[in-house]
Amino acid sequence: MSELRKDPIIGRWVIISSERSKRPSDFAGGSQARKNSGLCPFCPGNEKTTPPEIRADRDPGTEPDSPGWTLRVISNKFPALTIEGELNREGVGIFDKMNGVGAHEVIVETPDHQKDIVDLSEAQVARVLASYRERINDLGRDPRFRYIMVFKNHGEAAGASLEHSHSQLIATPVVPKRVQEELNGARRYYEYKERCIFCDIARQEHEWRDRLVGENEHFMCIAPFAPRFPFECWLLPRYHQAHFGDISDDMLSELAVILRDTLLRLRIALDNPPYNFVLHTVPVVHDHELDYHWHFEIIPKLTKVAGFEWGTGFYINPTAPEEAARYLREVELPQPSPATVD
Amino acid sequence: MSELRKDPIIGRWVIISSERSKRPSDFAGGSQARKNSGLCPFCPGNEKTTPPEIRADRDPGTEPDSPGWTLRVISNKFPALTIEGELNREGVGIFDKMNGVGAHEVIVETPDHQKDIVDLSEAQVARVLASYRERINDLGRDPRFRYIMVFKNHGEAAGASLEHSHSQLIATPVVPKRVQEELNGARRYYEYKERCIFCDIARQEHEWRDRLVGENEHFMCIAPFAPRFPFECWLLPRYHQAHFGDISDDMLSELAVILRDTLLRLRIALDNPPYNFVLHTVPVVHDHELDYHWHFEIIPKLTKVAGFEWGTGFYINPTAPEEAARYLREVELPQPSPATVD
Repeated sequence: MSELRKDPIIGRWVIISSERSKRPSDFAGGSQARKNSGLCPFCPGNEKTTPPEIRADRDPGTEPDSPGWTLRVISNKFPALTIEGELNREGVGIFDKMNGVGAHEVIVETPDHQKDIVDLSEAQVARVLASYRERINDLGRDPRFRYIMVFKNHGEAAGASLEHSHSQLIATPVVPKRVQEELNGARRYYEYKERCIFCDIARQEHEWRDRLVGENEHFMCIAPFAPRFPFECWLLPRYHQAHFGDISDDMLSELAVILRDTLLRLRIALDNPPYNFVLHTVPVVHDHELDYHWHFEIIPKLTKVAGFEWGTGFYINPTAPEEAARYLREVELPQPSPATVD
Repeated sequence: MSELRKDPIIGRWVIISSERSKRPSDFAGGSQARKNSGLCPFCPGNEKTTPPEIRADRDPGTEPDSPGWTLRVISNKFPALTIEGELNREGVGIFDKMNGVGAHEVIVETPDHQKDIVDLSEAQVARVLASYRERINDLGRDPRFRYIMVFKNHGEAAGASLEHSHSQLIATPVVPKRVQEELNGARRYYEYKERCIFCDIARQEHEWRDRLVGENEHFMCIAPFAPRFPFECWLLPRYHQAHFGDISDDMLSELAVILRDTLLRLRIALDNPPYNFVLHTVPVVHDHELDYHWHFEIIPKLTKVAGFEWGTGFYINPTAPEEAARYLREVELPQPSPATVD
């Protein structure tokens, strides 16, 4: 079982993952992608090569772990955290650790190996987002979990080890440091202003428009004012909502449209860049209903993170967000989009 | 001039660098290393292609910005922050920004293009470290600067854009967030225990030895208890010292030995990996004499940072530090080392 260890100085938790144990020779050559043996475990027909499915959207009459699905959620075969066991928090001299208890799931977004998420129909993207909502709300009932993180790695340089389009979910027994910092920052602003800081950002960016990439009735995509990375985008509800798990079906459909639109703009403007997106939402148990506001952060992987960034936690970004937003707005989308055929 | 912008939620400052302005097409193809045109600006004879030297170790009688040096400090030709101007802090609606005022210098560690820092003599490595001390103490007199960060990027994957062995220094008008977190964490521990947390770590690791990579009279190299990355190493004084600028010449020589030894072990164990090292020390003005403790963090670049890490600020590390330390201890160093000839 993996172990969670806490940095004694800044309080950051790290997963020491025995499932993925690496010796020096495993790093030689530079590539650490798990090699595909020709057989893709996420393709229809290969369901038995993955852990059993947790849920799936399937044709009526088809059996679990067999073909006939359009979306499939499974446990990660090489989990960073494992679902069985107790936390057993303990000290090690002056240090702190606990067992690596959690959940690590994979959302296979489509049966079609050739399609990226932007190639799916808006209805299918909405089903992917609905599966995030369902898994977050389901795992939120397990009292051992404090936070549920959904993210997607696209492209090897962004950490994707399998090509077939998928997202991941990790449920953690601690609130991650970065999330806690956002919660604290949003709380401080609320205490001062009695307004949600994300709502204020949404209002200002809607009015000023220079960092606006796109918007529809309930959502907007912006290049944030102080982005770490070139072409970083945030996708957020225009009106207050703290918890992604509370999103309605109507809003999911609208979110699917703008998410797909944003990823398509990035693909066209930047020639299919590797990227990560991460859903930021409230912890399982929280009192941030008024001051926090869920959102997606989308990070194309275009620059290398170097010593300065690791050392200081502050970033040198060569592209102003106003420029990035302008380029993304000006992308000519295919009309009618060839990507809408599912 | 570049701009410093503050993330309104978590308070992280970002440099929007106009000197390095990038359009979408600049990212196409994936590589963003500045192409070397055959001429290395850090090689002897090419001194006029760089900004004028700030200091150099030179043969008696040789002119500045001409050959005859063994170590050379210059301004970065493409600085992230620039030395002229005032900060002019101002608000932009709900956001905050200031001018990108600071210093960005390059320490060219050797005239020999073929040599990495581990190929230099211990005496030469000590001179490199002495130049860090000199520049930190000199720039610390400029009242606009709050922090001076020294770091080295080795290898393109670690962000090095030029091959010739060099380190960098950036003086910033704010204390970077990550540094402030360390200062706060160390302060909290001191308030509780009335001891420096780094001194406690040093004592425990010296006694337990399972995460110890090496030590000499005044320094130790450890694999930290909760490392973000495989084979991450920290190099720290065994006895309390808050400020790197206070290091004595004798200690510099001893530090050079253990730094070179550590980098050599990493090179042999991991086949010359890309890496970053970063000096962590106190801010220019501080009251952390008792609770903070300078150190180097050395981070080989072996894994990719993916969505989960960016989203949570917590890391999945496939190599336990006890394993990493054992591998590094067991490296057979060349005896007599061919690397000590300068």
